[in-house]
Amino acid sequence: MRIAELSQATGVPVPTIKYYLREGLLRPGERTAVNQARYGEGHVRRLRLIRVLREVADLSVARIGEILAAVDDESLSLHQVLGVAHAALEPRPADEDDQLAEARREVDSFLDRLGWAVSPDAPARRSLAQTLVRLRTLGQDVGPQALDVYAEAADTVAAWELDHLDAAGGDRERRVERAVVGTVVYEAAFAALRRLAQEHHSARRFGGRWTS
Amino acid sequence: MRIAELSQATGVPVPTIKYYLREGLLRPGERTAVNQARYGEGHVRRLRLIRVLREVADLSVARIGEILAAVDDESLSLHQVLGVAHAALEPRPADEDDQLAEARREVDSFLDRLGWAVSPDAPARRSLAQTLVRLRTLGQDVGPQALDVYAEAADTVAAWELDHLDAAGGDRERRVERAVVGTVVYEAAFAALRRLAQEHHSARRFGGRWTS
Repeated sequence: MRIAELSQATGVPVPTIKYYLREGLLRPGERTAVNQARYGEGHVRRLRLIRVLREVADLSVARIGEILAAVDDESLSLHQVLGVAHAALEPRPADEDDQLAEARREVDSFLDRLGWAVSPDAPARRSLAQTLVRLRTLGQDVGPQALDVYAEAADTVAAWELDHLDAAGGDRERRVERAVVGTVVYEAAFAALRRLAQEHHSARRFGGRWTS
Repeated sequence: MRIAELSQATGVPVPTIKYYLREGLLRPGERTAVNQARYGEGHVRRLRLIRVLREVADLSVARIGEILAAVDDESLSLHQVLGVAHAALEPRPADEDDQLAEARREVDSFLDRLGWAVSPDAPARRSLAQTLVRLRTLGQDVGPQALDVYAEAADTVAAWELDHLDAAGGDRERRVERAVVGTVVYEAAFAALRRLAQEHHSARRFGGRWTS
């Protein structure tokens, strides 16, 4: 298909497609004339993936480039592609202060206690520590009990996800794509379900009108 | 305290504090001279809350204003403030198309089946439907089984959260603040824990190096 048809099939405007081509997020089409190229189903899928990463995770083109490079690098295992995706999803570290360093130590010993196999430099360790600092700044101290509830739910969900990913099969590209999409999109799905469940439990306890 | 001390206590720069004052996110201090005002602990708490809403949920000043107006409106119950916060957290609706309308119907009957008490216009209904559409665009069809796993985890977490909110007590302002912060910040905490659990289960299944 031509670039105009590619645009129609994906909802991505032609100038944006050209930008992605220049930035290397999208492989060049097969050249058919000096000023014309042909694109295929692979381009459609790639554009849809880029769109979701932009819209759901609000990632920069540079971060999306990091994920796609990992998706395309056949020397990386699914496990490693998931690691690259996680790193791209985390905010870049700001300066560490004492409060954050202390929270990181707490997160480390919490994960040790859970017995989770998590690499020492996993970016989500820092992210969780940052969350603890934020809650404390707001005067809410988070005890181990609160984290236990979330950790157990996260463990159940992640175990199911990885089982599912493993069982779904397909070629390498499909599998790693599914892993990346799962991390990003299901995070949004869970957030929506949590809000719905909050409304349900809030209605049961406090009742009354929800939206104003 | 003076504005410079308020800035020091919260890490929010003076020009930003002045901007929040102009936008009405922060109540004026007590005037002590023509060009000077005194601020108190209430201002510190409010600024910290604004900072978290900006940093964690990346909310605009307008959206934060909506939440704070609800926090300050003593005629609203905790349940209603939570509803306003949820609405502010959702992206503003884009155009509906047939695919989204179909997904919304599926979400509605899914929630009916769960028996959750969720208002028909809850914004998270739309958000969840949008997620289903995105997954389908990427060729991943989401069956009821997948949603069940997430819904059960969300239900457990939300039930615990509302119990906790109810039991923690405190005055109205503290309680509604805690509700807003809980919705926003614990979403980030859960996301971090889910990624850590994903790494753990991915390591068990696929093994090898995580970060590159």
